[in-house]
Amino acid sequence: MSGRILLLFAVISLATPCQAAIDPLPAWRDGPGKQRILDFVRDISTPGSSSYVTPAERIAVFDDDGTLWPEKPGPQGFFALERLRLQAPQHPEWHKQMPFKAALELQGRYLQEADNASLFQLVAVAQAGRTQEAFRSDAREFLGTARHPRFQQTWTRLAYTPMRELLAYLRANGFHSFIVSAGSVDVARILASETYGISGDDVIGSSVVATLRDEDGKPVLRRLATVHALNDGAVKPLSIDQHIGLRPILAAGNVRSGGDIDMLRYSQRAETRGTGPQHSLQILIRHDDFEREYAYDEKDRASLNAADANGWMIVSMRYDWRQVFSFQTAEASAPAQAERP
Amino acid sequence: MSGRILLLFAVISLATPCQAAIDPLPAWRDGPGKQRILDFVRDISTPGSSSYVTPAERIAVFDDDGTLWPEKPGPQGFFALERLRLQAPQHPEWHKQMPFKAALELQGRYLQEADNASLFQLVAVAQAGRTQEAFRSDAREFLGTARHPRFQQTWTRLAYTPMRELLAYLRANGFHSFIVSAGSVDVARILASETYGISGDDVIGSSVVATLRDEDGKPVLRRLATVHALNDGAVKPLSIDQHIGLRPILAAGNVRSGGDIDMLRYSQRAETRGTGPQHSLQILIRHDDFEREYAYDEKDRASLNAADANGWMIVSMRYDWRQVFSFQTAEASAPAQAERP
Repeated sequence: MSGRILLLFAVISLATPCQAAIDPLPAWRDGPGKQRILDFVRDISTPGSSSYVTPAERIAVFDDDGTLWPEKPGPQGFFALERLRLQAPQHPEWHKQMPFKAALELQGRYLQEADNASLFQLVAVAQAGRTQEAFRSDAREFLGTARHPRFQQTWTRLAYTPMRELLAYLRANGFHSFIVSAGSVDVARILASETYGISGDDVIGSSVVATLRDEDGKPVLRRLATVHALNDGAVKPLSIDQHIGLRPILAAGNVRSGGDIDMLRYSQRAETRGTGPQHSLQILIRHDDFEREYAYDEKDRASLNAADANGWMIVSMRYDWRQVFSFQTAEASAPAQAERP
Repeated sequence: MSGRILLLFAVISLATPCQAAIDPLPAWRDGPGKQRILDFVRDISTPGSSSYVTPAERIAVFDDDGTLWPEKPGPQGFFALERLRLQAPQHPEWHKQMPFKAALELQGRYLQEADNASLFQLVAVAQAGRTQEAFRSDAREFLGTARHPRFQQTWTRLAYTPMRELLAYLRANGFHSFIVSAGSVDVARILASETYGISGDDVIGSSVVATLRDEDGKPVLRRLATVHALNDGAVKPLSIDQHIGLRPILAAGNVRSGGDIDMLRYSQRAETRGTGPQHSLQILIRHDDFEREYAYDEKDRASLNAADANGWMIVSMRYDWRQVFSFQTAEASAPAQAERP
């Protein structure tokens, strides 16, 4: 048999639907990044491998805003702004006080630029005095109907397709994945379960101080305006330690504020820095796709510098993802790989 | 066929091994208490029933010390006392300062009487300055070898058999069970996974303040001597709300300090107080078995009063449990049901 026929056979094999069906990450473009994920998961789940990790220790942590769904604006800011506007007539003082004044005057533009602390303060103040149950019911109703101003989709449809695939792939390989959000834990919980199938108790986030009161003979939890914990930056490793009690072996965050650097560093095993099999994986997502999502970076480049120094995987939304959202066709507007800088 | 033969047949049926095998709670004595558990689980898991609850909302919370294993002493106090004694030579001030002075002088007798706040303070101080990883490794080693002073068993063997059965039964019926401890979350996590198969992230407990430091270029979590949260009394509903984000439909605690009253009240649905199908279940364990375990009550009877006022189920270890520990034979020393007061 000639070599040409064998070659033809091989090409046909690669192109069969059967081969395509077993790719666990079809929305990720083939390349070194995708291969690194596949290699890591294979290595840590192969008994006898030098980097084998027992299923009980396969803990993965994911930032949410900008890592699992868009953050310009993120869902909690969008929700807080709506509630703030509804209640503004009863609060004339908000028109003189930051960050409320800026949020009410600049509205959408404010949400594009605000930091996590200010956004969560809006949530805390806009919902102060409400019971936890009423607050959650409000948030669920809002997230079920409100549409993202640019994409005109409900928030549950804004999950990044490649990240949905990654979470499903990790689950199939015995990982237990948590969301570790700098935003409201309650808002993140609603989206986590509806868009990613992540249980509410597997979500860690920012929270307000609440009180237990007796009202009409029943115990009721009411929210105060005071922030209990802003779960950002150096607080993330501490909250992971307190909630889970194990150090993750995979962490994913994104470039914008530097708020995920500590979490990614915390997940890194010393051995990973060298060559050879990986014992942990750090994923840093870069928003460089102005066509399909947004393009923005970090003023001081701290996240990218940390990634370079520590050998973390940097994901380009533009070049590493064949598809961003389920409502966009794969590769519909994706730039050619050859354009990659 | 005569009635006598039919009756004989019925008696044989009840006594067959097949019947015994399908009892999910063999260590619980048959009676109204056990029946109440069985009825509740059947009602909330029967689609179409007026008290049906979806699997996602079948949340159960359990106190640990005195509810899942003995608390005279509990494991965290026993562990803290040992560490305190080891370090006492370097801390002459402990001999003048409470609660350290009392713990060092009275030792085992101190553990019998100390309240949760004092016990957790011992844990916090005795382990201050250690990394979280070193602390957990210490605790795991201690719990793997130390023996309970009276029962001469390792702590992992001190799980109450009826509660192991109850947790397995709930799991088989779609419940997600959490431990909500007033003791050290780290100590409870080790025992939870080894004795009850409850994952570490499903344990909520008391914690100390920790810091994230950079040591030799690596992020390290170190414990301070300061209590971050004492997870007792009114704090339990708040920590459940923050960690899980759902109100439980089953809560179990025990009589001693009144520390579980708020958690049990929080789990109660208003409708449960009336007659008819139950929408939630509250279980309060009473230590009234001086032969197989211990007999003690609560000075102000607050837990029992709350149980009476709200219709909670009170479990007598002496009369409701056929077996307490796996290393004791069933009914070996159990008093006859007829003796029940």
